[in-house]
Amino acid sequence: MKRLTHPRHSHEPAAVLVVGSVAYDDIITPRASGERILGGSASYAALAASYFAPTRLVGVVGHDFAPHDLARLRARDIDLAGLQVDPTGPTFHWKGRYHENFNRRDTLEIHLNVFERFRPQLPEHYKNSEYALLGNIHPALQRHVRAALGKNVFAAADTIDLWIKTTHDELLALLRELDLFVINDTEAELLTGETNLIRAGHALRAKGPRIVIVKKGEHGAYLFHPDGLFALPAYPVVELHDPTGAGDSFAGALLGALAIQTGAGKPPTPTFAQIKEAMLFATVVASLTVEAFSCDRLESAGIAEIQKRANELRAMVTV
Amino acid sequence: MKRLTHPRHSHEPAAVLVVGSVAYDDIITPRASGERILGGSASYAALAASYFAPTRLVGVVGHDFAPHDLARLRARDIDLAGLQVDPTGPTFHWKGRYHENFNRRDTLEIHLNVFERFRPQLPEHYKNSEYALLGNIHPALQRHVRAALGKNVFAAADTIDLWIKTTHDELLALLRELDLFVINDTEAELLTGETNLIRAGHALRAKGPRIVIVKKGEHGAYLFHPDGLFALPAYPVVELHDPTGAGDSFAGALLGALAIQTGAGKPPTPTFAQIKEAMLFATVVASLTVEAFSCDRLESAGIAEIQKRANELRAMVTV
Repeated sequence: MKRLTHPRHSHEPAAVLVVGSVAYDDIITPRASGERILGGSASYAALAASYFAPTRLVGVVGHDFAPHDLARLRARDIDLAGLQVDPTGPTFHWKGRYHENFNRRDTLEIHLNVFERFRPQLPEHYKNSEYALLGNIHPALQRHVRAALGKNVFAAADTIDLWIKTTHDELLALLRELDLFVINDTEAELLTGETNLIRAGHALRAKGPRIVIVKKGEHGAYLFHPDGLFALPAYPVVELHDPTGAGDSFAGALLGALAIQTGAGKPPTPTFAQIKEAMLFATVVASLTVEAFSCDRLESAGIAEIQKRANELRAMVTV
Repeated sequence: MKRLTHPRHSHEPAAVLVVGSVAYDDIITPRASGERILGGSASYAALAASYFAPTRLVGVVGHDFAPHDLARLRARDIDLAGLQVDPTGPTFHWKGRYHENFNRRDTLEIHLNVFERFRPQLPEHYKNSEYALLGNIHPALQRHVRAALGKNVFAAADTIDLWIKTTHDELLALLRELDLFVINDTEAELLTGETNLIRAGHALRAKGPRIVIVKKGEHGAYLFHPDGLFALPAYPVVELHDPTGAGDSFAGALLGALAIQTGAGKPPTPTFAQIKEAMLFATVVASLTVEAFSCDRLESAGIAEIQKRANELRAMVTV
C-alpha cells in the first residue's frame, strides 16, 4: 500500500498538481552537514502529497540530476511528465546554514542554474487536477500555472521572504487568484506589517485568499477560515535534524489529505472540518521531514508511521 | 454570582490557598505606562482563583497599602486572614520595562521593603485547604508553607529565573515536594539545560513533580502528565496591553478550576482530563489579564466573559 486510505471515504482521491523547485542543497546545521541532497519545494511537497493522492510534478532539473533521485520520486508513483530536463546547465543549487536552535538560517550560496530559464509547461492530462500547490517559486511562475488550470481547481500557494521583498505586486496579484495561502509567521508579519499573528491572518484573508494558514514551526499553525479560527499545536519533535522542507511537505501533505477527503471527479470544495483534518496530517508529515536531511525520513516513514503520529497528535490536542 | 459553576459538578468547590507577593508595580510597555498599580504573584493568582473557588491569601503588605486595593481583593471574597500588614515599611515595589513585541522585560528597580522580612503564617482555618499555590517567591518560603499544610494538600508552585539562578538547591528541594510545577519556556530551559521543550518537560518531571506545565506565552502550554502529553494553544489575544501577571493568573485559575472539579472535603486527586479542562480556563483567564494593566481586566471581565472565552477556545482547538 503506497497511500493512506480514509475511513470515511472509499472514493478515489482527487489529483494534486505540484509546481516548484527541484534542487540540490548543501545544508549545514548545528549538528551535521549534508552535500548535494535532494531538495526544492516541489520535491518535498510532491513526496508528501504522494502519501495521500495521485501527485503530478511540474519543475525542471539540469544535466547533473542523478537517476537515483529521479527513481526516488518515481518510487512514490509521482507523475513526472511535467518535469523538464534541461541539458544546458546544472540543477538549481542552494547552500544554507542554520543557527543554533534552528530559529534562523543564512543563505550562503544560491545558483538558479536551469531554474533561471524555467517556464512551467503542463502536460494535457495534468489540467484536470482538482488541487494545485503553487510551491515556493517566483510569483509570476505561480500565476502562469494557476492561469493554465482553469476555474475548477483549488489553488494553494506558499511563498518566502525573497518574493515578498522583490516581487511584492506580483505576489499581491497571485493572492487574489488563490483559494488557500500558506505562509509562515515571520513572512506573514513581513507581508502585512502586523506583529500580532491573529491580525496578520485576517489581513492576509483581506488580500484575496478565502483561507489562510499561518505556520509557526514548533509552535504549530493557525487556520483562518470563513467559518472560524483553528489552532493546532505541532507534533512534538524531540530530535530536530534539519528543518529544510518542513513548510513544503506541510503544504503537500495538506493538499493530499484534502484530496483524499473530497475525492476525484468533482469540484474540490473542502469544508472547515476537512481542512482541520488535513492540517493534522500536514503537521505530522512535516514532523517527519525535520527528523532527517532531505526527504530521507519522509520517504522511509511509511503510511503506518504517518497514521500513528496523526492519532497521537489528535489525542494530544483533545481537551 | 461571583463564581463559575461547573455543569457536571454540583458539589462545593475545594478551597485554594495562595501564597506569594503583593506588590505595587511601575510598568512601562511599548504602548503605555502605569505607576503604583496593584501587582504581585499572590494578587493576580488569588483574583484569578476567586472566580472558581473559595480563595485564601497569604502575603504581606506595608504601611502604604491602599484601602481601595484591599477592597479590590475583598470584593472577590478572597479570605485575607493570612495577609499581614507590616507597619515598619512600604509594600514590595517593582519597576519594569517591556521591550518591543513584549518578548523580553528588564527589571529597572526592585525594592523588597516589608517583603524582605516576610515569614508566611497560616491562620488555622487555612490548613484544611485542598489546593495550595506556592506562587513566585523565595523557594524557602514556598517550602515553609508547603510543610505547614500536611500531606493531603495538592501543592503547585511557580518560579522565576531569579530563584533558578540564586537558590538552585532550595528550588530542587521544593520540586521534590510538589504535585504540580508550572514554569515558562525560558525558565524550563534554564533549569534543565534542555533547549527542546518536550525534553525539558520530561526532565522536570524527573526532578520530582508528578505533573509539569510548561507555558509558552502566546504559543500556549504543554502539560506533561503520567497519562500523556497535552498541548493547548493560547487564547488569541489581539490587544496585548501588559503581560505582567499572566503566569500568576494562569496558575491561580488552574487551581481554582481544579477545585471546582474535584470538590470540597475530599483528597484532591485531579485526573488528566480534569487538568486539561482546568488549563482551558487558566488560559482564558491569563488572556484577560494581559489585556489591561494590573488586574483591571481580570476584575471587570466577570464570569460570563470567562465562560464565553472558554467555549471559544474549546471550539478553536477541536479538530
